[in-house]
Amino acid sequence: MQVLNSSVYYLLNLKFTKEDVDYLRSTGLFEEDFLKYLKNFRFTGNLYAVDEGEVIFPDEPIVQVEAPLIEAQVIETFLINTLQHPILVATKAMRCYSVAGGTVLVDFGLRRSHGTDAGMKAARASYIGGFAGTSNVLAGKEYGIPVFGTMAHSFILAHKDEIEAFIDFATVYPENAVLLVDTYDTVEGVHNAVKAMKMVGFKHFKGIRLDSGDLLSLSKISREILDREGFKDAIIVASGGINEYKIKELLDSGAPIDGWGVGTELVVSADLPYLDCAYKLVEYDGRPVMKFSTKKKTLPYKKQIYRIYEEGLIRKDVITRYDEKIDGGKPLLNKYIENGRLIKELPSLKDIREKAITSFNSLPENMKDINRAVHLYPEISKTIEKTVKELEKKHLKEKKR
Amino acid sequence: MQVLNSSVYYLLNLKFTKEDVDYLRSTGLFEEDFLKYLKNFRFTGNLYAVDEGEVIFPDEPIVQVEAPLIEAQVIETFLINTLQHPILVATKAMRCYSVAGGTVLVDFGLRRSHGTDAGMKAARASYIGGFAGTSNVLAGKEYGIPVFGTMAHSFILAHKDEIEAFIDFATVYPENAVLLVDTYDTVEGVHNAVKAMKMVGFKHFKGIRLDSGDLLSLSKISREILDREGFKDAIIVASGGINEYKIKELLDSGAPIDGWGVGTELVVSADLPYLDCAYKLVEYDGRPVMKFSTKKKTLPYKKQIYRIYEEGLIRKDVITRYDEKIDGGKPLLNKYIENGRLIKELPSLKDIREKAITSFNSLPENMKDINRAVHLYPEISKTIEKTVKELEKKHLKEKKR
Repeated sequence: MQVLNSSVYYLLNLKFTKEDVDYLRSTGLFEEDFLKYLKNFRFTGNLYAVDEGEVIFPDEPIVQVEAPLIEAQVIETFLINTLQHPILVATKAMRCYSVAGGTVLVDFGLRRSHGTDAGMKAARASYIGGFAGTSNVLAGKEYGIPVFGTMAHSFILAHKDEIEAFIDFATVYPENAVLLVDTYDTVEGVHNAVKAMKMVGFKHFKGIRLDSGDLLSLSKISREILDREGFKDAIIVASGGINEYKIKELLDSGAPIDGWGVGTELVVSADLPYLDCAYKLVEYDGRPVMKFSTKKKTLPYKKQIYRIYEEGLIRKDVITRYDEKIDGGKPLLNKYIENGRLIKELPSLKDIREKAITSFNSLPENMKDINRAVHLYPEISKTIEKTVKELEKKHLKEKKR
Repeated sequence: MQVLNSSVYYLLNLKFTKEDVDYLRSTGLFEEDFLKYLKNFRFTGNLYAVDEGEVIFPDEPIVQVEAPLIEAQVIETFLINTLQHPILVATKAMRCYSVAGGTVLVDFGLRRSHGTDAGMKAARASYIGGFAGTSNVLAGKEYGIPVFGTMAHSFILAHKDEIEAFIDFATVYPENAVLLVDTYDTVEGVHNAVKAMKMVGFKHFKGIRLDSGDLLSLSKISREILDREGFKDAIIVASGGINEYKIKELLDSGAPIDGWGVGTELVVSADLPYLDCAYKLVEYDGRPVMKFSTKKKTLPYKKQIYRIYEEGLIRKDVITRYDEKIDGGKPLLNKYIENGRLIKELPSLKDIREKAITSFNSLPENMKDINRAVHLYPEISKTIEKTVKELEKKHLKEKKR
């Protein structure tokens, strides 16, 4: 799932301050000409990218930079840095969304993300990946993502007992109180929640949150208690070590859970905490180039990706030279920046989220299964294949000399 | 391995801008009293923490906050966020350092870290964990960490051939040229490096970097070629998927590698990308409190950790009430902030790195082995144990009512 915005922002705004240049000079590593160049640096090239929210596959050129070599090199590290983590989080989020069957997903991960920047980007990326919102209030402010919160264990521990804590909390948040019931004993906690709500005379309250223990049995018992006591519309939220596998397993087993707080494993992309994405020179001074290192081969040429649909589903992607055309294929790489200027309007976050869901839905069924690692392998156009062969031949010849 | 600085900085500087408060008001979730409170918010409490660079163990209270409940809650998420990732990276770095046998370790991870903040903190944390420096120039600037760099594949691809690229690079950096030899064919690349250096008349050059392939055989062949051709002092640097296990395996097998670029797995702490550290209320209004949730029990009381050494090695840690004393034990929790003000000088990064290495060296041998998950289990003082039993008894009694 493509996530892009920081890269665009970076390319449009990158510059080196006097202080930066002074530091670089102090290292003694750089020539004065280069330092002078950096002082006036701005990105003057072009950026082609797959739209945010679009489904992407391994080995696809999802971002393409066309610029003087020095500019293309200066931006390399940040560009890679800024793409990978949000792509991982959006993908993990969409995996959760795909099995959540309409239940609500909320990002609870800020505390476990790798620093604050990652926490912010994880909130944005998970929203793109189908989440309903985040507990990260700053992300709410910066990106306009809906904000969700529930009570903390310390709030309860600071009270004489649970009932008193629930009463205090629900009085302040009569509409939004999701009561955390596992501080001492979960089943007892649900009973206490019910008692507290009756004591303050509430006919309805938002719900409860289970944060530990056997979520299947506890959610069933909780539902039973809530229903029996007349709180049929109180929701049950689960949190604590949630991932797409647990969501699927619990819902498949009939756990009456209405919402999920997904934290740690989402924001650090725990089962795949890094993406091996590469940024390589593919064309220089009009000639195609490639790298031959073992297992790290790259394809030459400035490229386009054509996506071909059949009955609304993605049938194949073809990677071509940029100037090739594939009939009926939808070109995925769009020009965002031209000569250093933004030339394409960036869609709203809501629209990106819509696009992500639509794009996910256009995947063939077998690629949607979270338990199967099936993905599409993009085809390579004949023109590119031919050049690869020629370059390999030329390379072998040079080696023999 | 404790890493702390961002937490201290945060507590000393946290405030809410007018813009922040206006946003919070716009959500409709908060009462005006609370918003007014936030406008004038500053942290007025105390911070106790284990020093940066000190070895720490699971279940130890490495940071302790003493403050009005509302302040302690406001800072919770950021405090957890800012502690975990650097602790993981410093630990992973020290694991690499412990098997590197004097070879040089450099952080190459910025491009793979989860955002820029993580990239900066990973550079700092890995330096604390025994690394010699980083390729992250901004971290060099901000933290004064030594900066290392080598050439990129794209530099080579932009040249007619490798020899031309090596000549260009070495001419600009005669002292520091570490030539990347794997763009086309590694052994050929080493030969080309030698040819290039001879063509420009260099008697010495810094060295070469292997970034792919079988590093054991390639480093041996490279060493042989370099020695035979009269470049005995040229170093061999290895990069690409390096971690502590590969370093140990390669050095144990006799790979003549002098330096390592460690990236991805270091900065995302790949085998343990998150730390389950908890921030819990332990004492309130003079009374000890604890959480009883399944598997998430916490210990009551404001605490101290006493470390007991024997013949220079850590023998045990004892967690006590803060007002207890353990004869001959070194108290690990130091007061950094009092009434919102810094009262302890923060050591230089170099001193922290020294402390980390000394602290690591004071571990018993079996805890230094990267292939064994042996760690110290802190003892709990009798006073705390007694209170736990009392609170559990009281809790059970309340449940029965």
